[in-house]
Amino acid sequence: MEIEVAGSQPVDIYRLLISCVTPRPIAWVTSVDAEGRVNLAPFSFFNAFGADPPIVVIAPNRKSDGTKKDTLANIEATGDFVVNAAVADLAAEMNLSSKDLPHGESEVDLTGLSLAPSRKVKSPRLAESPLHMECVLRQVLPLGDRQLSANLVIAEVVLFHVEDRLLDEQGRLDPRKVRTIARLGGSYYCHTSDLFEMKRP
Amino acid sequence: MEIEVAGSQPVDIYRLLISCVTPRPIAWVTSVDAEGRVNLAPFSFFNAFGADPPIVVIAPNRKSDGTKKDTLANIEATGDFVVNAAVADLAAEMNLSSKDLPHGESEVDLTGLSLAPSRKVKSPRLAESPLHMECVLRQVLPLGDRQLSANLVIAEVVLFHVEDRLLDEQGRLDPRKVRTIARLGGSYYCHTSDLFEMKRP
Repeated sequence: MEIEVAGSQPVDIYRLLISCVTPRPIAWVTSVDAEGRVNLAPFSFFNAFGADPPIVVIAPNRKSDGTKKDTLANIEATGDFVVNAAVADLAAEMNLSSKDLPHGESEVDLTGLSLAPSRKVKSPRLAESPLHMECVLRQVLPLGDRQLSANLVIAEVVLFHVEDRLLDEQGRLDPRKVRTIARLGGSYYCHTSDLFEMKRP
Repeated sequence: MEIEVAGSQPVDIYRLLISCVTPRPIAWVTSVDAEGRVNLAPFSFFNAFGADPPIVVIAPNRKSDGTKKDTLANIEATGDFVVNAAVADLAAEMNLSSKDLPHGESEVDLTGLSLAPSRKVKSPRLAESPLHMECVLRQVLPLGDRQLSANLVIAEVVLFHVEDRLLDEQGRLDPRKVRTIARLGGSYYCHTSDLFEMKRP
């Protein structure tokens, strides 16, 4: 089957695209507005893109009424955010935090999770997540002005927090212990349980 | 454990970052140079970021000598590329194609795979992959000039190819049938075998 983008409905292209680019890592983002109110939301339009400096990109969609999501508005207002790891043990809470609450109501309260202060940024960390990246905004790059258009939020990681139980015997983060979940198409997620190794040739 | 980026070695930050942002989807990219010679290489600094228009971003690192990888040079020369799905059945070939060959030698020949023409772009598709996205370059955004700095290659998908065996009964791409593999830290990969569903609240 061939699907040409020109002439297709954006929502159909969205459904297809999220089934084609899989599995997508989840940035479970804490941010604050100018008054210090905390927002928590998951984004699977997310990845790392370089290490010198360490760059992460997320892209919040717009709301159905065309306005910016709280996360994007907060990051533009305060210039920082935290990426918390979405691990299997917190899957239900992560999903619950995707709910669109009125501005000022907290997804953190809704999920029953708790916050911990960050070291370098105003946005707090999610205490229950074992892995956090404190991020400073570098640039927002809009690639269209419609509801499903990408707004690339390009940021630098300035500090990593890693719980000691995720380390191997050499004191390095052990990929087998992180147990993140990831997003596929439809309502599907995958566990990172079925691992294998391949050395570069 | 806390790791501050300032003062750390870029290679240490790289190793940490690729264990923190997981699992990463793999863009298995075919591209051509001005003479039509085909390059094939996998990139896990990759995701989709919007649907209207459909945007994908990849970020090839530089080679250890600081020069551009063939994929980036090709995309800048010809303005297009194809993302082929890296599925479990082709894991060994995907890994083999990450080998740095001298410019002009073909990773396609090395892997024993074959090519099929694209509809909208000059870069061909990998015939054995069941899913392809024909992409047109929109912008290259450099975020540093060092070996591990990100070069964001921002592109629009113009055409999708989906093998019929990946469709469900309604004719839509079935996330359970795609069976992509993904990148974790170290030499680890995961299968998308252990799926679960969560509906948005």
